[in-house]
Amino acid sequence: MNLRLALAQLNPTVGAISANLEQLKSAYQDAENRQCSIVAFSELSITGYPPEDLLLKPRFIDDQLAALHDFAAVTGNCVAIVGFVDRNEENLRNAAAICSNGQIQHIYRKRSLPNYSVFDEKRYFTPGIEPLELIGVHGIPVGVSICEDIWIDDGPHVDLVNLGAEVIVTINGSPYHLDKDSQRETLITRRATELHVPIGYVNQVGGQDELVFDGGSFVVDDSGQLIARAPLFTQSLLVVDIDIADRDSRVTPNISLNSSTPPPQRASNPAEIVDSMSGDDELYEALVVGTRDYCRKNGFSDVVIGLSGGIDSTLVACIAVDALGAEHVHGVAMPSRYSSDHSLSDAEALAKNLDIDMRTISIEPAFAAYMDMLDPSFDGRQPGLTWENVQSRCRGQILMALSNEFGWMVLTTGNKSEAAVGYFTIYGDSVGGYAVIKDLLKLKVYDLCRLVNERPGDEVIPHNIIVKPPSAELRPDQRDDQSLPPYEVLDPILSLYVEHDRTAQDIIDEGHDPEMVSRITRLVDIAEYKRRQSPPGVRVTEKAFGKDRRVPITNGYR
Amino acid sequence: MNLRLALAQLNPTVGAISANLEQLKSAYQDAENRQCSIVAFSELSITGYPPEDLLLKPRFIDDQLAALHDFAAVTGNCVAIVGFVDRNEENLRNAAAICSNGQIQHIYRKRSLPNYSVFDEKRYFTPGIEPLELIGVHGIPVGVSICEDIWIDDGPHVDLVNLGAEVIVTINGSPYHLDKDSQRETLITRRATELHVPIGYVNQVGGQDELVFDGGSFVVDDSGQLIARAPLFTQSLLVVDIDIADRDSRVTPNISLNSSTPPPQRASNPAEIVDSMSGDDELYEALVVGTRDYCRKNGFSDVVIGLSGGIDSTLVACIAVDALGAEHVHGVAMPSRYSSDHSLSDAEALAKNLDIDMRTISIEPAFAAYMDMLDPSFDGRQPGLTWENVQSRCRGQILMALSNEFGWMVLTTGNKSEAAVGYFTIYGDSVGGYAVIKDLLKLKVYDLCRLVNERPGDEVIPHNIIVKPPSAELRPDQRDDQSLPPYEVLDPILSLYVEHDRTAQDIIDEGHDPEMVSRITRLVDIAEYKRRQSPPGVRVTEKAFGKDRRVPITNGYR
Repeated sequence: MNLRLALAQLNPTVGAISANLEQLKSAYQDAENRQCSIVAFSELSITGYPPEDLLLKPRFIDDQLAALHDFAAVTGNCVAIVGFVDRNEENLRNAAAICSNGQIQHIYRKRSLPNYSVFDEKRYFTPGIEPLELIGVHGIPVGVSICEDIWIDDGPHVDLVNLGAEVIVTINGSPYHLDKDSQRETLITRRATELHVPIGYVNQVGGQDELVFDGGSFVVDDSGQLIARAPLFTQSLLVVDIDIADRDSRVTPNISLNSSTPPPQRASNPAEIVDSMSGDDELYEALVVGTRDYCRKNGFSDVVIGLSGGIDSTLVACIAVDALGAEHVHGVAMPSRYSSDHSLSDAEALAKNLDIDMRTISIEPAFAAYMDMLDPSFDGRQPGLTWENVQSRCRGQILMALSNEFGWMVLTTGNKSEAAVGYFTIYGDSVGGYAVIKDLLKLKVYDLCRLVNERPGDEVIPHNIIVKPPSAELRPDQRDDQSLPPYEVLDPILSLYVEHDRTAQDIIDEGHDPEMVSRITRLVDIAEYKRRQSPPGVRVTEKAFGKDRRVPITNGYR
Repeated sequence: MNLRLALAQLNPTVGAISANLEQLKSAYQDAENRQCSIVAFSELSITGYPPEDLLLKPRFIDDQLAALHDFAAVTGNCVAIVGFVDRNEENLRNAAAICSNGQIQHIYRKRSLPNYSVFDEKRYFTPGIEPLELIGVHGIPVGVSICEDIWIDDGPHVDLVNLGAEVIVTINGSPYHLDKDSQRETLITRRATELHVPIGYVNQVGGQDELVFDGGSFVVDDSGQLIARAPLFTQSLLVVDIDIADRDSRVTPNISLNSSTPPPQRASNPAEIVDSMSGDDELYEALVVGTRDYCRKNGFSDVVIGLSGGIDSTLVACIAVDALGAEHVHGVAMPSRYSSDHSLSDAEALAKNLDIDMRTISIEPAFAAYMDMLDPSFDGRQPGLTWENVQSRCRGQILMALSNEFGWMVLTTGNKSEAAVGYFTIYGDSVGGYAVIKDLLKLKVYDLCRLVNERPGDEVIPHNIIVKPPSAELRPDQRDDQSLPPYEVLDPILSLYVEHDRTAQDIIDEGHDPEMVSRITRLVDIAEYKRRQSPPGVRVTEKAFGKDRRVPITNGYR
């Protein structure tokens, strides 16, 4: 028998219940028009994922429940699986409503609540414990589960199949990090193979603060073979015909939907299987989508970027142009007495290649004013680092003034290596609404710049920007490697310390230079207060600086 | 029979395992010298509470386990109850070790793990499920539980008493908010009365990032009568003799400690019962301790404060002087073309009364420089708010330059009302390491200023500062009430929306002006990105802006 399943990979906005509802209805209509028997939406699709502490407002729960009933009322024969927040007295549950023919027919409640990394589900939800039920669609028993449930080895999928499920649909709010899509496919393939059951996996797309959801919804058949895959990072209604093997006997679910209508004939064209992307392509696209959605969902059309002629601001400008269009990106070069000639010319060449607006504002008058104003206080002293920070903050001032006056969001250009060791000026180069590459270690910034230049057509990024030694240009002849070890040494240590929960001693035990490790890890610890005041930005690793790394500022551990 | 119980109310530093261990050993020695039968330390006393994501580093767990064994090795007859992190394979448990005679004699594992408000314990810990055991001390059966356990109506205290416990000791890491101490005493009194058992409650003291722990350890007897209370906010070893009623029969715990030594004779002097404090006194002290510990534990001796002559910076200066001493507090007045005469004279009078260092640095040269620098970009426009923000950021620049050069931490002076509606300049008046009064609504700022002036001796705060209308002085004749409703109207709405999870519609339904409520709640929502980049500060309410309020920035809910 044929079962036509649609996976609706949508881009909700957290909290925008009415707008999300309209999206759901529209996709439902598409699925019905395409004679689908089931259409599955992602986890908490009515509220968007993750709604965080909006869930603590009782009226927010009321409002999304009203939206669910509104949605259910417009359903027809096609069976919709919709993520929402269920409430029983004061207890909330992360739930899926199975709706058809104008009604909510059944509710499944998530059993495994992730409470690690960026997830706080035990803050809000009570786990589902009710007996499992199958849903009959054209008589075929279908089981539903939600996200984390299927990552647990003896999760409800096992019991659902034991009850007689012949198809499993899992709805997800699964944020991207590098290679997450292949991890998901490996897992689901294993589940399908072990249980001999086809599985449909649907995920949301789009950016939500620091998270970006990559979609990549897919279906595997009962041998674990991939039979459909939606694109990464874009909205899509993935429709696939699943061949359900004939059986001598078949359980009859209590909840029987669509039993009187025959399933559609198998389509002549196979479902789409979009190619997977390379790691760097994925990363770049995640940064573009995260930036675009943060701007769009917060009402900003334009951004402004301080262009230093360095590699970081260059990559951010390229991403911004891909996210928003060249006409919405504004560059500002802000030379000082210590800027090299090539800084300005490199920035100008980049702006020309990207075809973006660019202006030059020297910071010299403000810098000179501060030196005079502070002279009585600094009487007789020879400030070094202080003047470096003052210059950086003059630049921050200019960017913020342009932002205030023209409504352009400032994009912050710092990378993860700098953020880790505190090699930035708080309220200076760290100002901004969104820190596009905050989760990229410096070496990865170079990789993505090379990726940009490998695209067909002329090289966008001037060669000199990629090959010159990195420098903050805040004093004569400054270079990053005067203050920091080479990034080839720094980045692997940072990865171990920040992303993999190693201690300094662990890293030394792995053979790294003890003095270097002690110095770097200490720098990371004492920069925590600065990072805490930094803008959000796209998370692309398994542990970004953000809500997946909750270390104390006041921290006596060495 | 007499049982002498010591409650060791200490001030640990999170992560500083060696230093915390030394404190534990020293307090243990005191308790032994005073012939105590039991000494109880607070929850996770070896690591300090809360250790947050340090718990994810396996070696951190190793290190604190080694410290526990080191501590146990020095114990003698006196039975110590010590909070630590227990590990079983990969699972961590929030645990209490019962130690004496050089050994760990028993381990109790916390059963109820708070995962709401500022608490994330389910992120780290697995709940304890082992059968409960009593500890015999001089033959008296004693039960132990940890913090949240005793807040649950049918928690382990009930089972412990049913097993035969004649004393309950609960160890806690319970952060302060207004009136929390009386809530705890009310609860524990009820438990003691219901179960007819004396209860000892021990809590840590001191600041840890945004949290301040108020101590206030106490003991109630088996009729619920308070028989001992330690001071709020200061370290203390509270020693009390508990009269254990004779019984015909008594259970014999499996774990029998101190059975051969007789309990000490009842002391002739009763234990101390420190007076409780008024609400405003408590609040003020919490702010002092939070500020002092944030500075001290992060290695800062001195602070610098922008003194505007307004009520907020005035209160922060008073708190700073009480926290660190007048010689460690530096004031800076930063007048502009829009400053009133009284701003400077009020700030000077305050600095004189507080006997603190003060300097005046006009922001005019830098402000004028920015106006020139931005003139070509603002060609023909009449910037309003932008110039206001530029002035505020000039002040931020000066404070940060002084901080960078002299190592003074900047104390931020914004209050909760301003933070809520975004009535501050990001990277301007919000710069700093610690935002002392970020959790005080504006009306409460006035209350605490009056409290300061009610102290014996001369009035510290010049009268004019308290009575003049609030103004940011960023344009001619500016007053807060041109942009905001009066604080008497604003603060109650903010409390409902921010602290009590009401929606705009809820607040309108309660009778507030619909247009006003819509405008204010919208201001709160769109200021989230600014607050996210603000410094930490003392939490004194049940819901501060911080980790107890995790709302999305990108938020379509109206």
